[in-house]
Amino acid sequence: MNSRYLLTLSLIFTLFVNMGAQHQVPIPTPEQLQWQNTELAALVCWDMHVFDGEFYVQKEVRITPVKDYNTFDPKNYDMDQWIKSLKDAGFKTAIFTVSHETGFFFHQSNATPYCMKALKWQEGKGDILRDFKASCEKYGILPGVYIGTRWNAFYGVHDFKVEGVGTFAEHRQQYYNTMIENVVEEIFANYGDWAIVWFDGGAHSPEQGGPDVLSIFDKLQPNSLFYHNLQRSDMRWGGSETGTVPYPSWGTFPYLSTGAGESAKKEIRANNYQLLKTGDPNGNYYMPAMSDAPLRGHGGHDWFWEPNREDIIYPLDKLVKMYYNSVGHNTTLILGVTPNTDGIIPEPDVKRLKEFGDEIKRRFDSPVKSVSGEGYQLSIKFANKQNINQVVLMEDISKGERVRKFILEGKTKGGWHMIFEGSCIGNKFIHRFDDKEVSAVRLKVLESIGKSQILEFSVYDVTNP
Amino acid sequence: MNSRYLLTLSLIFTLFVNMGAQHQVPIPTPEQLQWQNTELAALVCWDMHVFDGEFYVQKEVRITPVKDYNTFDPKNYDMDQWIKSLKDAGFKTAIFTVSHETGFFFHQSNATPYCMKALKWQEGKGDILRDFKASCEKYGILPGVYIGTRWNAFYGVHDFKVEGVGTFAEHRQQYYNTMIENVVEEIFANYGDWAIVWFDGGAHSPEQGGPDVLSIFDKLQPNSLFYHNLQRSDMRWGGSETGTVPYPSWGTFPYLSTGAGESAKKEIRANNYQLLKTGDPNGNYYMPAMSDAPLRGHGGHDWFWEPNREDIIYPLDKLVKMYYNSVGHNTTLILGVTPNTDGIIPEPDVKRLKEFGDEIKRRFDSPVKSVSGEGYQLSIKFANKQNINQVVLMEDISKGERVRKFILEGKTKGGWHMIFEGSCIGNKFIHRFDDKEVSAVRLKVLESIGKSQILEFSVYDVTNP
Repeated sequence: MNSRYLLTLSLIFTLFVNMGAQHQVPIPTPEQLQWQNTELAALVCWDMHVFDGEFYVQKEVRITPVKDYNTFDPKNYDMDQWIKSLKDAGFKTAIFTVSHETGFFFHQSNATPYCMKALKWQEGKGDILRDFKASCEKYGILPGVYIGTRWNAFYGVHDFKVEGVGTFAEHRQQYYNTMIENVVEEIFANYGDWAIVWFDGGAHSPEQGGPDVLSIFDKLQPNSLFYHNLQRSDMRWGGSETGTVPYPSWGTFPYLSTGAGESAKKEIRANNYQLLKTGDPNGNYYMPAMSDAPLRGHGGHDWFWEPNREDIIYPLDKLVKMYYNSVGHNTTLILGVTPNTDGIIPEPDVKRLKEFGDEIKRRFDSPVKSVSGEGYQLSIKFANKQNINQVVLMEDISKGERVRKFILEGKTKGGWHMIFEGSCIGNKFIHRFDDKEVSAVRLKVLESIGKSQILEFSVYDVTNP
Repeated sequence: MNSRYLLTLSLIFTLFVNMGAQHQVPIPTPEQLQWQNTELAALVCWDMHVFDGEFYVQKEVRITPVKDYNTFDPKNYDMDQWIKSLKDAGFKTAIFTVSHETGFFFHQSNATPYCMKALKWQEGKGDILRDFKASCEKYGILPGVYIGTRWNAFYGVHDFKVEGVGTFAEHRQQYYNTMIENVVEEIFANYGDWAIVWFDGGAHSPEQGGPDVLSIFDKLQPNSLFYHNLQRSDMRWGGSETGTVPYPSWGTFPYLSTGAGESAKKEIRANNYQLLKTGDPNGNYYMPAMSDAPLRGHGGHDWFWEPNREDIIYPLDKLVKMYYNSVGHNTTLILGVTPNTDGIIPEPDVKRLKEFGDEIKRRFDSPVKSVSGEGYQLSIKFANKQNINQVVLMEDISKGERVRKFILEGKTKGGWHMIFEGSCIGNKFIHRFDDKEVSAVRLKVLESIGKSQILEFSVYDVTNP
């Protein structure tokens, strides 16, 4: 046994030397670090069609302007209720859809008339983006903004392109692109710092005939996260909307960008976006996956509020499982929440979020023991026998994802026993298992690129896990 | 001589009996009567592109949304100045382009966001249509509203049709039509009575895949004039934008409607819209021609203000000639005036309008003598020899345009001499001629449908005619 470990140790040192020299692991930016530490982010989805009284059919809404935007009349609108709900549930980041696919912008714009100025509501003076930002500051939530440019039913834009042909289309595309640039400039310039800006489906760049939003980002939000276009993508979509990724899901990716969903390159599209899910340990770009799902996604898939759909709110146990398979798999879990037509996050959703947050706290706030350290082995010893059923591992990813192979072992009366044999740790790896009585646990890093930096190695004895 | 006239008289009586029974001449509605009495109407043209700093090229603006609508910032906007200028110049009606081809609406709309609400100007509370209506009331000008639905660069609508294909186009057309109906309803419902509503290029009707604006008109503006769609046209375009029609220009027309410019039926399009110019004495529809021209149309054709174009304001003598060939040819003269980017009708335009109004007054306010009467002959006798050089004839068109053939004669030392042999009188016929010294003048109606009803037969001795 010991000799085998010595051999492994030698091998690891060899790897340190060889691979450390050959291969620099990609390092996240400070903003990506913060993002990975977020763990729980809410995507707050609202758009004009929520108010149209019809069940949302995305492909219809994409090509059909909303009949009457003044159906937007949330009488009990309470932004603090939204953000407090998220804060109470343990969310660290919230991202608001200032525009989705109808083309309406939930701010005061001087670049597109299809914005809050057009509304009777609050006499055209409302600014939900402003309220959102203020409330995030009030409750200590990192604010993000989601901007839809790919689909715009109001302007007749379909997959980035205006409909029509010839000079008409050429002029209109130019107009649309400039309008988007101006709107983006407003959002980036007039609302302070954003923790993340999210161009859904990506943002076409000038080379693709699209607006130049990245330059505006670079100028006005240099310390934010950019998601995404073909030039830059600070994170990647996790390849499904299940709120999970498989294990392992590496934070690194072999391409500079992912492309937009169905128009991604075939290596990315292959096997139902497998590469987005797993990433690539040898990828040159730090671009961690996001696990996204609508809270109302259990037997349905409602990113946007519909009446009488409380029954599809994920049950608590499913959300907890989702957490293990997202945050516990080195990704941020992005849960879609959606205010109702009354202007608040519905009570059943708030309740479930709170239950979820409480349950996560209950499961993770009190480890039996935590250690950190660097190198190939970390051990935790107990004075007495200790029941455990959960382990959390975190790399110090400010040094990059270094670990490639590891084992977790527990020491019982019969000696050391394997608990888990893994590959990726990354920002966070969580493993739960049947109750095991141990006197010690140890993490052995069998392969890594450079010396592994373990920020946290915690073991838990969760009751009713 | 006498026997010839007796014969004519007999013939006329025969015609009375025969044709009166066979052919009822079309009778104008009270609104059309009022319109014909207007004589001078101003079409006040404004649109967002006036502010874009570029020379207006209609076919470009039709397909290119205005880059920045907040360039609209008329710092010395003064609606009273507009309307007082028109009043002072003798205009009786003013028609304002609440929308032209950019798609922007100069009112507070809850149906299209591309309206005054979108502007920084007056903090989005401005309503030029409201101001226009109020000022017209203040100065006793009949208010009209011009609504563009055929071209809409903002929504990508080209000759009534949204650009694009398939379901996208179908849904978008439906949206556009409904939006137009809602906007029209606002304009008809929220601003009181309009003397005339003008859908330029016509308004497509539901049968043509367009909005149903006529029903809204019937419901909300039953006492207004409707111009125009395929179901109804209370007047017709005079077939040119020269501010004139040829003689004769009958107030009657053989078709229910005219169609829109280049898409009119071929009988109407033929010979450069000859039928629009002349009308048809046997037409079943009372639908008098309008003679329209931009005030800035002399060596240019600017319906919309451009900087440094004062030199193309029609000279006074051309305007006076235009009056003779429009009002004097049984049509209303519609002069296009256009406020500048400062928000006022420019001083040179105001000055020219005033000169024009004064000159028309000078020429027409003091006839040597006026008579009226019915039947086939009307005479004016002078105590002494009288110099004359102008005659005005008016039928009482509330009874229809009855006269088909007439002669004007003056009695000199040598007996009766022909001054003019004509066909149409209609609302107004003006004839000017070289100075003639007469002791009497007479109008002989040689043919008419029913008994001719001469509302006015005036002779003038205009100095410096």
